[in-house]
Amino acid sequence: MVSLQTVGQLGEIESLRRTVSRLSNSEHAIVGSGDDAAVVATTDDRFVVTTDTMIEGHDFRLDWSSFYDLGFKAVATNLSDVAAMGATPTALVVAISVPPTTLIENLEAFADGLRDACQQLAPGCGVVGGDLASSEQVFISVTAHGALQGREPVLRSGAKPGDVIAIAGTLGRAAAGLALLASGKADAINAYDDWVSVQKQPRPPIAAGIEAALAGASSMLDVSDGLAKDAARISRASGVAIRLNKRDLDGFIATVEEPAMALGADASTWVLFGGEDHGLLATFAADAKLPRAFKPIGVVASGEGVWLDDQALPENGWDSITGA
Amino acid sequence: MVSLQTVGQLGEIESLRRTVSRLSNSEHAIVGSGDDAAVVATTDDRFVVTTDTMIEGHDFRLDWSSFYDLGFKAVATNLSDVAAMGATPTALVVAISVPPTTLIENLEAFADGLRDACQQLAPGCGVVGGDLASSEQVFISVTAHGALQGREPVLRSGAKPGDVIAIAGTLGRAAAGLALLASGKADAINAYDDWVSVQKQPRPPIAAGIEAALAGASSMLDVSDGLAKDAARISRASGVAIRLNKRDLDGFIATVEEPAMALGADASTWVLFGGEDHGLLATFAADAKLPRAFKPIGVVASGEGVWLDDQALPENGWDSITGA
Repeated sequence: MVSLQTVGQLGEIESLRRTVSRLSNSEHAIVGSGDDAAVVATTDDRFVVTTDTMIEGHDFRLDWSSFYDLGFKAVATNLSDVAAMGATPTALVVAISVPPTTLIENLEAFADGLRDACQQLAPGCGVVGGDLASSEQVFISVTAHGALQGREPVLRSGAKPGDVIAIAGTLGRAAAGLALLASGKADAINAYDDWVSVQKQPRPPIAAGIEAALAGASSMLDVSDGLAKDAARISRASGVAIRLNKRDLDGFIATVEEPAMALGADASTWVLFGGEDHGLLATFAADAKLPRAFKPIGVVASGEGVWLDDQALPENGWDSITGA
Repeated sequence: MVSLQTVGQLGEIESLRRTVSRLSNSEHAIVGSGDDAAVVATTDDRFVVTTDTMIEGHDFRLDWSSFYDLGFKAVATNLSDVAAMGATPTALVVAISVPPTTLIENLEAFADGLRDACQQLAPGCGVVGGDLASSEQVFISVTAHGALQGREPVLRSGAKPGDVIAIAGTLGRAAAGLALLASGKADAINAYDDWVSVQKQPRPPIAAGIEAALAGASSMLDVSDGLAKDAARISRASGVAIRLNKRDLDGFIATVEEPAMALGADASTWVLFGGEDHGLLATFAADAKLPRAFKPIGVVASGEGVWLDDQALPENGWDSITGA
């Protein structure tokens, strides 16, 4: 006897009970889920906050990503924004809206994804509140919080000529994963499942954000929309030019050459313009000791724009409205 | 020459530029919009956080509510959850997703609604970040933060037998407004536009939350799903019975009698079971001096359940999944 149950059959309270019980606690919660609001401890008299939304058909497809994947990715992408400020993630609130016909096991898998991403990427961080509603499209909105532990936040505006620019995490792998999924070629998707996994369950280097802050990073952001576009954000905010060395990117290009050849795509394009790896791009004074997770890929110079060797890079990247 | 512009034509960056510029600042923002995350000052080493989502077709209809209304209501409903903890609202992050065909003037009106609700309901509070995306349905997700200024948070679980239970704000008016809109009767909607306005632009008594905390409220929540359902939440969390006096509710019933008669509806049902007024329901020790905004409507007793005089009240109210 099969008993398939939908969130519409169970209603809000029972659906929430089954999912919230699967989450891990935030070590920083003074008051957790269940009241009008949560109360979260800070390490000083400030907190860091960021929000990001994922929408079915625009940011994900349910035939490509499982609900577990979605929970994992929603946490990972928000934690990387907290880390990019040099902060330690402490607490999340999560709003999800699903069609009433959604099976409760999918909502449970989503909660498992939230939990595992917290535990694997930022131990001690957890979900302290949320909202469950119904809609035709699946809609996920996460707000993440972090603690600065007395440090100054690392902004996009502090890069100075003479600084080194460096990246922690991967480049181009999420774009490779997306292209593999879009190709519909089951053989290629299976052969390169590590790349597909970066797209579906990104693992940004959260701890590296704090290490960068401690090492005196002069600017930092998370690469969500592509190296060229996100480097241009540092360039504009800091009033500097970013000069990337092609040679320093060769290693990143090499790691996506194989799937690129399988699809007849260009590996360099993925590395320069592909988003969603959520690595951390940071600048450091030339004499700073870079944290181990960071690999130098260029220098900051006076002037403007983003350059690859002597070539100006266009800002192609992801626009969440036009989708181009 | 008419120049209608959609957010799809303008793209994310230009659409955001036009809307964010209309917002007022949070006095508590150390770092505002424009970086990976915002940094918000607290008044002690904790913060209060809550999130709530509004979805087209489920929580609102675009033929009933303007984008200005939606911005106003999204802020108001979240601020009332912050106030219900006894906290002062400090900062919001706002995610909105709209079809690409949405006119930019609608997004601008949404921003105006956000700004006006902050300024009117919680001066000093403002939007410190957000997210703009595209979808078929309009989705709005707001996360609100508050400061406790050294006070303990007021939970749902502290009501004690012998306490007085009291309400600040209105009861049944938002339900009257919803019934008027649903009736489609233009004459009635115009005649009772004050009631319709409570539904479209609720004005919860935010300052009364802090006053209640200072007066020693033993429990508090915001009445979003109806008096009976929300009183039952205090009852369960505190392990007590809530005994409401019918006589004390007569004034609330009287204020919605006129539209009820116009529609052939029952005014008592709106007052007892209608949600979305976002008043604050709180309990106080019998000898406490109630803040002026609060009107006593019953007592806390040992036992369980919610009672109207000698009659047990069912928990009818709004379920965000089943819509019943």
